[in-house]
Amino acid sequence: MTIDRDQIEAWYRAFQGRFIAAIEAVDGTGRFGTDEWNRPGGGGGITRIFTGQGPIEKAACSFSAVWGPTPPQLSERVAATSSEFYATGVSIIVHPSNPFAPTFHANVRFFSTDGGQAWFGGGADLTPHYFFDQDAIHFHEVIARVCNRHEVADYPAWKRACDEYFTNHHRAERRGIGGVFFDHLADDLDAVWAFQREFADILTEAYVPILERRIDMPFSDRNRRWQSVRRGRYAEFNLVWDRGTRFGLETKGRTESILASLPPVAAWEYQHVPEPGSPEAGMLEVLTGPPRDWVAAR
Amino acid sequence: MTIDRDQIEAWYRAFQGRFIAAIEAVDGTGRFGTDEWNRPGGGGGITRIFTGQGPIEKAACSFSAVWGPTPPQLSERVAATSSEFYATGVSIIVHPSNPFAPTFHANVRFFSTDGGQAWFGGGADLTPHYFFDQDAIHFHEVIARVCNRHEVADYPAWKRACDEYFTNHHRAERRGIGGVFFDHLADDLDAVWAFQREFADILTEAYVPILERRIDMPFSDRNRRWQSVRRGRYAEFNLVWDRGTRFGLETKGRTESILASLPPVAAWEYQHVPEPGSPEAGMLEVLTGPPRDWVAAR
Repeated sequence: MTIDRDQIEAWYRAFQGRFIAAIEAVDGTGRFGTDEWNRPGGGGGITRIFTGQGPIEKAACSFSAVWGPTPPQLSERVAATSSEFYATGVSIIVHPSNPFAPTFHANVRFFSTDGGQAWFGGGADLTPHYFFDQDAIHFHEVIARVCNRHEVADYPAWKRACDEYFTNHHRAERRGIGGVFFDHLADDLDAVWAFQREFADILTEAYVPILERRIDMPFSDRNRRWQSVRRGRYAEFNLVWDRGTRFGLETKGRTESILASLPPVAAWEYQHVPEPGSPEAGMLEVLTGPPRDWVAAR
Repeated sequence: MTIDRDQIEAWYRAFQGRFIAAIEAVDGTGRFGTDEWNRPGGGGGITRIFTGQGPIEKAACSFSAVWGPTPPQLSERVAATSSEFYATGVSIIVHPSNPFAPTFHANVRFFSTDGGQAWFGGGADLTPHYFFDQDAIHFHEVIARVCNRHEVADYPAWKRACDEYFTNHHRAERRGIGGVFFDHLADDLDAVWAFQREFADILTEAYVPILERRIDMPFSDRNRRWQSVRRGRYAEFNLVWDRGTRFGLETKGRTESILASLPPVAAWEYQHVPEPGSPEAGMLEVLTGPPRDWVAAR
């Protein structure tokens, strides 16, 4: 591989800045705060957080680059063949205020060890509270298009992996309408790196037009209440099933960074079942039925 | 043991009714709803839920009695020596509206197998959002008093077990000011059963006077916001650390019953740190400092 850590870190940091600028431009009412932190074992991060009362209610776009002795909790293979690890990445979460605007989550990351392992991972997925097929199709089409331009990318497999991963198994319900999820891309790292940069840079194109279409839609208390119930499901997924969150909490990672993805507010009502035929019931049908293909075969 | 399942179940069901009546009397604005359900593998339950806009915002008091083939996820010892299990119990959660009124959680339960195992378990703990030493002392004194009347009870050990168990390890912060937690009480079952009935029946005496003292206290938006942040921590404990919740979700238990304990609303703010010297900071000091003895040595 011709790239090095410094190059990857520098690119990730610049990407963090570009993504933040795009979200601030849509919101128009505030700025991301900056929280720089050091990791006791090595490295650190820049967590950038948005808390607002305009179109964006809460968002986080965090860069980190951490290193040190390989933790035993990493996979046996990695722990057996290395003594030092290095990990860098950017993770993104956007919780808009408007119940019709979907929550967006994405990350891009690079991992390597002194044992010679190195891979890229990442993904992006969309969690609407109300279903608009136009939004799901747009989101998947933009992502499929960038995947189709790169030999190293496999949109259909990554789309399936995303549907499987982001599932609240205890409810037999997917978190949202998916996207892509990829990990351990270790072959032809230069090509993967080229893909990953292009992937990261189309995320605003995948998400921002949806956000712009939804943030001014009029909504009721009922819509907002449903959004809170769905945000409760979002918290359930992150706290119960998300491997990264659980690994971080169990290995005493930086709690505030790990949990920055949690929704600003969430609600739990016993046996909340939407009225049959309602838009809320329509959303649930999409999340509990078989995963759909959003991109026409090409 | 001279008692049998029918007796235990009948007593638990009557206790459920008494506890509910006590909470409805304090609230004065509404009634618990009733949701009866059957467990596909054997048994079922009566989940009783309160959702209100008066003093009690959300409460659940659930009876269940379930049986069937011993699940392999139970402890190896139990799975190796039995083919059928039986479990019954009542679990309670009360989330009052007023931020100065603490959340209350308790349960009493009995477990047995056809392999000859049988034990009782249970506990009760209090989760204030604002600290009043009067409340903590009252709660612990009432519980210690009933424990001290029974040879089979060990208040000091069970108080320590409660402090240890109800901890958000990722925050090095206890969930509340504790209470007692006991399990696997398998010796002298008749004496344990006598203790457990008395323990269950003093729970209203332990909690209701605190509730009555706090539900009419004036509060501000700031108090309510802090309550929401603390309720977020409550959800974190239940979803990340509570063994019963995780076991239930991973073994596809009845999700709505398992998660009935979650707060009506919760909030997550990045790096929410209370002002030094504030009542919010005072509460945190109690939760992060060494566990206190609430009961004078007697």
